[in-house]
Order: sequence, then C-alpha cells, then structure tokens
Amino acid sequence: MFDIDLAHYTEVVDKALALRSRIEEAVDKICEEGYSNIFFIGCGGTYAHSLPMLYWMESSSAKLDVYSVIAAEFMAMGHKKFSKDSICVFSTRSGNTKEIVAAAKFCKDAGARTLVYVSNDDTPVCEYADYKFYSPAEDPNLCEAIYAYSITVLARFMRNAGEFEKYDSLMDGMAKLTPYLIRAKEQYDPICEALAEKFKDIDYHMIVGGGMLWGEAYDYAMCILEEMQWIKTKSIHACEFFHGTLELVEEDTSVILFYGEDETRPLMDRVYRFVSKVSNQVTIFDTKTVELPFEDPEFRKILSPMIIYTITERLSAHIAKVRNHPLTVRRYYRQIEY
Amino acid sequence: MFDIDLAHYTEVVDKALALRSRIEEAVDKICEEGYSNIFFIGCGGTYAHSLPMLYWMESSSAKLDVYSVIAAEFMAMGHKKFSKDSICVFSTRSGNTKEIVAAAKFCKDAGARTLVYVSNDDTPVCEYADYKFYSPAEDPNLCEAIYAYSITVLARFMRNAGEFEKYDSLMDGMAKLTPYLIRAKEQYDPICEALAEKFKDIDYHMIVGGGMLWGEAYDYAMCILEEMQWIKTKSIHACEFFHGTLELVEEDTSVILFYGEDETRPLMDRVYRFVSKVSNQVTIFDTKTVELPFEDPEFRKILSPMIIYTITERLSAHIAKVRNHPLTVRRYYRQIEY
Repeated sequence: MFDIDLAHYTEVVDKALALRSRIEEAVDKICEEGYSNIFFIGCGGTYAHSLPMLYWMESSSAKLDVYSVIAAEFMAMGHKKFSKDSICVFSTRSGNTKEIVAAAKFCKDAGARTLVYVSNDDTPVCEYADYKFYSPAEDPNLCEAIYAYSITVLARFMRNAGEFEKYDSLMDGMAKLTPYLIRAKEQYDPICEALAEKFKDIDYHMIVGGGMLWGEAYDYAMCILEEMQWIKTKSIHACEFFHGTLELVEEDTSVILFYGEDETRPLMDRVYRFVSKVSNQVTIFDTKTVELPFEDPEFRKILSPMIIYTITERLSAHIAKVRNHPLTVRRYYRQIEY
Repeated sequence: MFDIDLAHYTEVVDKALALRSRIEEAVDKICEEGYSNIFFIGCGGTYAHSLPMLYWMESSSAKLDVYSVIAAEFMAMGHKKFSKDSICVFSTRSGNTKEIVAAAKFCKDAGARTLVYVSNDDTPVCEYADYKFYSPAEDPNLCEAIYAYSITVLARFMRNAGEFEKYDSLMDGMAKLTPYLIRAKEQYDPICEALAEKFKDIDYHMIVGGGMLWGEAYDYAMCILEEMQWIKTKSIHACEFFHGTLELVEEDTSVILFYGEDETRPLMDRVYRFVSKVSNQVTIFDTKTVELPFEDPEFRKILSPMIIYTITERLSAHIAKVRNHPLTVRRYYRQIEY
C-alpha cells in the first residue's frame, strides 16, 4: 500500500491496545475511590474524537455523567459541573499543545484526577498526568491509539458501574483488531486512489455524519481537508443537513457521507435519498463494509469511529499525493504567533 | 428602517416577553412536582438557539442538568438520561416541523412533561404540549421570542433551585427590552447596508463565535446564509478555529466575528489577532456596542445571543435586497420529498 509501513502501523496499534491492563488498574482505583463525573477535554482532533464517546455514553449509560468540552473554553467558562471529584480524560500526540497542557494543569491544580494518553513521552503534559498512558503514534495512526484508549477507559467505567457485562468480550475482540484494520485499509486503498483523482480539483466538500460518526465528519473536514490540504469544507450533522446546508447542493457538489452502524443510520439514508437526487458527486464511506473480529452490533457501533478514520486515512494519503501537497505542511499553525 | 414594521416588531417582542407569568406558573408547578433534568430538543435554528442556553447553564448552574439535543437524533438514539422525569423544552415557529412534532409526541408518550413555545397556534405540535406558550412571530423576529421564552424558563428553574437571586431584576429589565432592541437595529442598519454591498459577490464566509455565541455563529451560517441566501459558509468555534480552519484564510477571505460578553471573549481576541494579520475582509459584530436596560455583566451575557441575532438580522435584510434573493425562497426544503 502507498505511503504506509505496515510493520510500524501494527506496532503502533498493538502498543496502544496493550495499554488495557494499565487502564484497567487506573479506572478500578478511581472507582474504588469514587468520582462524580468524567470530562473529555480536547481541542481539534482530540475534541472531535471525544464526540463519539459522548454519543456512545448518552445512548448506552444511565449512570455515567460524561462531558465533552473544548479545552480553552472549558477553562475560560468555569464549568459548574467540574470539581475535584471529576475525572479528566486527555489525549495528545505532541504532548505540548498549549491548550491541552494548560487544561491538564488546571484540572490537576483543582484536585481532579487526570488520565492522559500521549504519543510523545517526557513532554510538558506528562507533568500533569495522574495516570499517564504512553504509546508511540503519529498523525496517520493517532486516531486508532486514541480510540483504543478512550474506548477502554469508558468501557471499564461502565463495567464497574454494572452497565457493561460484555466488557471482556469487547476487550478480547479488540486485542485481535490490528490485522482487520490493515485489511480494511487494503480494501479501501484502490477505492481511495481513484477517489483522489476524482477529487483532485474539487475545492469544496460537504461531509455528513451522525451519531457515532458526527465527530469524525467534523474531524475529517477540519483537521484533514482544511488543515492539511487547505480545501474548503462544510461538516454537517446528518439531522441538521436539512435545516440549511441542503440548499447549497447542486449537480456537481461533492457530498461525502460517513455511514456508521449506530441508531442514526436511517437518518443518513434520508440524507442519501436527497443528495442522490440532486448531485452526481456523492461518495459513501460505510463502516459496514469492513470485516471486524466480532459481529456483535454493539461492538461494531463502538468501533465505528475508529474504522471510518482508518479507511479515510487512505483517502488523505492519496489526495496529498495527487495534489502534491504533503499532509504535514502548515502555513500558520505553530508558524506564527497569535 | 428598511423592510421592518416597527409597530409589529414591538408587538411580537412584547407579547413574547409577556409570557413571563405563565412560564413562571408552569415552572413553579414542575418544581413542586419534582423533575430530574431538562432537555432542549430542537433542529436547525431551534437547536442552534438552545446551545447558548446550554453554555449559560454549564457556566452558571451546579444544580440543573441540562441537555441540548437534535430532535431526530435524540429519538433515534434512545438517550439514557431521558426519562418520564425529564422536562422537555421545545420551540417552533411553524408548529408543524416534522421532527419537532414527532419528538414532542415521543416525549409526551414517555410520560415526560413538555413545554412548547409556538408562533402558530392550533398547529400539530400543540397537541403534545403540557404547557403551551403561544405568541405570534415570523422568521426575522422569531429569535427574540425564543430567547424571551427559554431565558425565562431557565432563569426560573435556577431561581427555584436557589441559584439565581437576581431573577426579578433580570425579568424586570427584560420587560423594558423592546425599545433597546429597536435602537440596536437602528444603530446597525446603516452599517449592515454598507456591509451588504461589500458582501454582495462574496461566495464564502467564515463565521466565528464562542461561548454564548457559538450557537448563533452556527445559526447565522447555516440558517441564514446557506438556507436563505445559498452562500457557502463555515461556522467555526472560536477555540476550534486554530485546529484546522485557520489554514484556509487568505488576504481576501471574509471572516465574520461574533463578539459577545461572556468568559470566552479573550478567545475571540485571539482569533481577531490572527485573522487581522492575514485577511483584509474581517467583520466584527459586537454585542458590547449595544445599549441595554441593564449594565449587570451577567445579564448582558445572558442576553448576548438575542442581541447578536437582532443586529445581524439587519445584515440579512440588506443582503437579500442587494442580491435580489428573498430570504423566503427555498429550492428543496419542504419542496421535494426525501
């Protein structure tokens, strides 16, 4: 496959999945001590990847109070549900993102317990981690590591609250995940190579997702196409699409649909029925097409944001190639002061 | 002023503000009976206008558990925090929006109590309202009515929970609001007339807001520029702007900043510092420029989403005129089946 070292990819994902036992120890200790609620605190990609976790909890847990907040806003606003009894969950690739380091310090200083996944050890954020989970990762495989971590964290909290009897079964399945992810990439690589050619000169895409995939639609639009390719996008929730954005669709408007496997799938069908009538540039990424080590619909739902990221990473790689625009180039971020 | 009947506007806003005593009766009865949490359930504009209410509660109330959900997704997902003890807050102009009618029925059938603001009486949604609040309104003034209603609802819940001693003071101030809103429109009308000329041929705008104004940035982008003018937009949260969208900004990129009066204002300054270095098409709408019947910063924060809507409505009116594209034209919504 183009631009991917599969041995390295396997190592990265396996090492993240291997954090399981240390995460279990941490969560079990927290549950023994007691806690009030759980805050996922992120920015950009790490905020985006916490949105599916929020959807998962809201659709599955009656007992856990989970919030997903943007780090800088969270600090500014003085969130009234945050206290020393809160559990604060962070993830960061660099370990030095200003807002994340500041928020982790803020939470620790307030006496709250912090869990931090980091792909670069011995970085500033580590100082503020009560529980640090390190495994190596880079942008194209970071999402797999983040989801391995955050799914395990929440699944363990749910299990300990008596809400997830299938915990061991999910974890045992996830331990076998890596070769399935590679096969998913192999399956989508030629599709994405052709799509990249088709997308080469398109300067605006709509990306639609709902439920577990809204955060991924938001992320792919903002953190990949906008940040890494300087292509305009509108990410729009499957339900919200009909309350404005639909009026922009024309025959040649590129609409990319992220189809997942949760309760909102019929709401994506409604978007598809509309856009397929109007546009001839409709693209579907569907996690249902990917084989996984389990068939339990609940497990497939939980993994769906990781799967959509894994397969669309192939599109990112090929788009960067055909547009001769590396995914690592930034003209402003971390380049100029503001 | 262009395209506005001030006598009618005054009547609409005053009638919405006059719902106060009936809202108080309803909320007081609910508080006597007891309740677990409060769901704002909307879609499009009504979802957008509930986001500031969520921010307000998260930054102000330790006791109320408030959710802001998208109607169709809420119904599909089976929200685990929703129960017969939940209070469901709706607003709808038409009274017949499919998703809203379905969600109100869903909530009532589940035994939850429903509060419904509606601008068209005797419409399908009314059947599912335990507490119906009717006052006349149309698109250009609907937002004032929705905020008059939802601010009063939440302020009363907070007061009854012992969290808002200034309730009467806020309400007495709001009763005097209408002439201030008209003066705000008069103040912004010539500014917006000039802006509309400048914006006439611009085919893409970024709209940035945070805190109490994120929902309004989202709304103005999607429900006004996209739905009513078929102009492409990206609405982006003030904090998230730096995690992708900033890379798109060029010298001639239109960036519209919604400045409010809450804790996130310094985060807007950060956006301004960046965009003013790169683009020469930066526009600011700032609620701080508007005189209100009170100076209490907490009250000004609470009212800020209504104020930004009130002044940007002048931009909508003038843009529609110079582009010869009435705000009421739809090519798809409620025109074709999907």
